[in-house]
Amino acid sequence: MKRVAIVGLGLIGGSVALALKQLQTGVQVIGCSESAKDADAALNSGAIDEVADSPAAAAQGAELAVLATPPATLGELAGEICAADEAVIVTDTGSLKLPIAEAAQALPEECRRRIVPGHPIAGTEHSGFAAAFAELYRDCTVALTPAEDASDEAVALVQQFWRLLGASCLVTMDAAEHDALFAWSSHLPHLVAWALAATVTGNDRGEEMMQLSAGGLRDFTRIASSDPVLWSEIVHLNRDNLHEAMAGFAAIWQQLTRQVAADDEAPLKRFLRNTSRAARS
Amino acid sequence: MKRVAIVGLGLIGGSVALALKQLQTGVQVIGCSESAKDADAALNSGAIDEVADSPAAAAQGAELAVLATPPATLGELAGEICAADEAVIVTDTGSLKLPIAEAAQALPEECRRRIVPGHPIAGTEHSGFAAAFAELYRDCTVALTPAEDASDEAVALVQQFWRLLGASCLVTMDAAEHDALFAWSSHLPHLVAWALAATVTGNDRGEEMMQLSAGGLRDFTRIASSDPVLWSEIVHLNRDNLHEAMAGFAAIWQQLTRQVAADDEAPLKRFLRNTSRAARS
Repeated sequence: MKRVAIVGLGLIGGSVALALKQLQTGVQVIGCSESAKDADAALNSGAIDEVADSPAAAAQGAELAVLATPPATLGELAGEICAADEAVIVTDTGSLKLPIAEAAQALPEECRRRIVPGHPIAGTEHSGFAAAFAELYRDCTVALTPAEDASDEAVALVQQFWRLLGASCLVTMDAAEHDALFAWSSHLPHLVAWALAATVTGNDRGEEMMQLSAGGLRDFTRIASSDPVLWSEIVHLNRDNLHEAMAGFAAIWQQLTRQVAADDEAPLKRFLRNTSRAARS
Repeated sequence: MKRVAIVGLGLIGGSVALALKQLQTGVQVIGCSESAKDADAALNSGAIDEVADSPAAAAQGAELAVLATPPATLGELAGEICAADEAVIVTDTGSLKLPIAEAAQALPEECRRRIVPGHPIAGTEHSGFAAAFAELYRDCTVALTPAEDASDEAVALVQQFWRLLGASCLVTMDAAEHDALFAWSSHLPHLVAWALAATVTGNDRGEEMMQLSAGGLRDFTRIASSDPVLWSEIVHLNRDNLHEAMAGFAAIWQQLTRQVAADDEAPLKRFLRNTSRAARS
């Protein structure tokens, strides 16, 4: 890869830029961001060589364009970029894959075949270029959800790109299946962390409780400090899957609450033992 | 301190022994454990100098006895040890303070005054001496719940002991207040982690979900791999406080579920934003 466009220069796009510059000698990285602050920081740090005025301008002449903007923007951006350069291959980093897959289906075939949606399973609770670091994707898993008629060359380039950035596992799956699985493995845990943080911080003595907390609660409140705008968008876009996962959790919580209220140790101990065993495996 | 008895040589007691030996030159540490495996491992590693046959035998001639056994055993053990040596000062490391406080109230005054219950807010999801390490208590907070008539000398010795082991903050509070606060700051988060782990691992595709998980879910499943026997005992002993905390969490979860179902982004975004802000502060 000689020229790569990165649209969105926050934690995710910024880390892609830093990693590319560190791992691919001579690559030219063109960045584009709605945040002038992130664009300046990326340029000043050397993570990108140039700031483009628009996603389309960034993509012109690039072999690969990586979209790292909020989930709801990805479909439209992918279309714009494919139209701007007839050879560029497009991937993204969004936590949801159905919105971009559906938008791609509406594009002309020769555009659609160059779009390979992706989701690197990596991140932190921080956001913005200031939080970006080159090692974010080292040893991560990346889920790719190319359409059935995606070009082999496009898929191979995106796979090569993630291997270069350090991904240790590449999984290909259907976009709808991806979003259903991640409702449980990622979106549900985030909402649980938010609900727990709200429960404790909303208590009259919440401040004291936070001061007395160690591992457990701190892990939750760290997760609950994630970007609320991004996460309300994820929840909105994946609401049907998420609602089902939330109902599944609520059923377990009710059962557990009944066991605690009944003070019946045997079923509680059995529940904890079985869950510990499953969690360890 | 020239001679310290440690009853229970798992993660908590074992780490006390390792830290003492590392930080206090010339101290003699006498250990006692129901687990021959933990006792042997502690002796072989040099964490203790000697294995005693009983808690009472371990405490004879010691300035301080540290109890690191399951919560329900602490009250009786404290009484036994005070009776075995007329000078020994007794502390413990249990996650609950009311059971030992109530047991101490039933003892003769001269025993009771030498008991200074404590709770180092430190631990991992592992258990047994194999998981112990000397740095466990470095920079931790320790809550002490001495009764009003506890001897000043006993309180001072226990404070000195935890400072030696690296505690950065010592807090004194009432035993009942301690258990009420920790229902929210520690026991509730653990049950939430267990419920989430059970929700995901109980799903037909749970294995795939676990493989695709990163930070969020992995933090939860790590917590949910904690010792189920210890935790069912903690839940049992603190069930009234915990039930109230669980109801508080359920109310927030119901509200959040309604917001997701209604797909009304404004209140959800407000909830996430307010919670993120509180979690960060």
